[in-house]
Amino acid sequence: MSEFIHLRHKPYSQPATPNQLVLAIPQLRSNVNLARIARAAGCCGVKKIIACGNAKIDPKIARDSLDFLEVQRKRSLPPVLKELKSDGYRIVGLEQTTHSHNLHEYQFQMKSVLVIGHERLGMSESELALLDDSIEIPVFGLPLSYNVATATAMALYEYCRQWAQQSVSI
Amino acid sequence: MSEFIHLRHKPYSQPATPNQLVLAIPQLRSNVNLARIARAAGCCGVKKIIACGNAKIDPKIARDSLDFLEVQRKRSLPPVLKELKSDGYRIVGLEQTTHSHNLHEYQFQMKSVLVIGHERLGMSESELALLDDSIEIPVFGLPLSYNVATATAMALYEYCRQWAQQSVSI
Repeated sequence: MSEFIHLRHKPYSQPATPNQLVLAIPQLRSNVNLARIARAAGCCGVKKIIACGNAKIDPKIARDSLDFLEVQRKRSLPPVLKELKSDGYRIVGLEQTTHSHNLHEYQFQMKSVLVIGHERLGMSESELALLDDSIEIPVFGLPLSYNVATATAMALYEYCRQWAQQSVSI
Repeated sequence: MSEFIHLRHKPYSQPATPNQLVLAIPQLRSNVNLARIARAAGCCGVKKIIACGNAKIDPKIARDSLDFLEVQRKRSLPPVLKELKSDGYRIVGLEQTTHSHNLHEYQFQMKSVLVIGHERLGMSESELALLDDSIEIPVFGLPLSYNVATATAMALYEYCRQWAQQSVSI
């Protein structure tokens, strides 16, 4: 008998401080990517997603993330990003830009909005203009870019890694 | 004009030390998950994947990861895990078990094999018996578990975060 016994359906961790990340997602090409992002966000304790367009989020993929987090529908991101900015959120774009921080070294403000880029087109000029920071995930091989849901999962992971440490220290 | 200008197709980073992570993947339920894992692994600079079964890796999803990394096909994982163990690799299972380390706090040995669990069944008893360590990603909401490709992406990210720091310091 192995020392490691497989566990299933552990309850989720109750952090000392609430997750204060908001995910802002443009109308994506693929609804599958949107649903995958919803599932990852729910697992990570994200409470609110802002999604553009009316694309259905497939519950077979998103699972019960849709019972956990609020999905706010918008026509476009800039107006809501401006509102969140005036509420004290830092607007952080996940995008390769001329001024990106390496995600490995980036320190998230707990109250942040993570803005995702479109699979093909990336972030629009009006979204880019509202960013406080841009972050990118280093690539060490091929292909030269991560799938959008994969990159989002990595950024969510990094936020949680930092936030969970905050939670413990408070 | 925004301070942030979108960049496309930046060449990948050349690390000072090679990525020494091997990914070991059982026969998964979904070939889409396998292909997504291949793409994320290629981006992360992983050189070798061991995949069980003959499932085709869809190049529309995996992109040119298949030109970058070697895919070794096996009937099952235990024999090749034993070989890699005797070659000095640490065998690390990505699985919720009775003795899992929190990925946030886990220090990877650079020469590691990351073993993935099946979507439904998790890791087999014979795979669990060969692990040196088991790691899990904390869940802070619903659903109670990450998709397998999402969890793998997060673990690959964490390895790269640690390994890239190694690369710089050498």
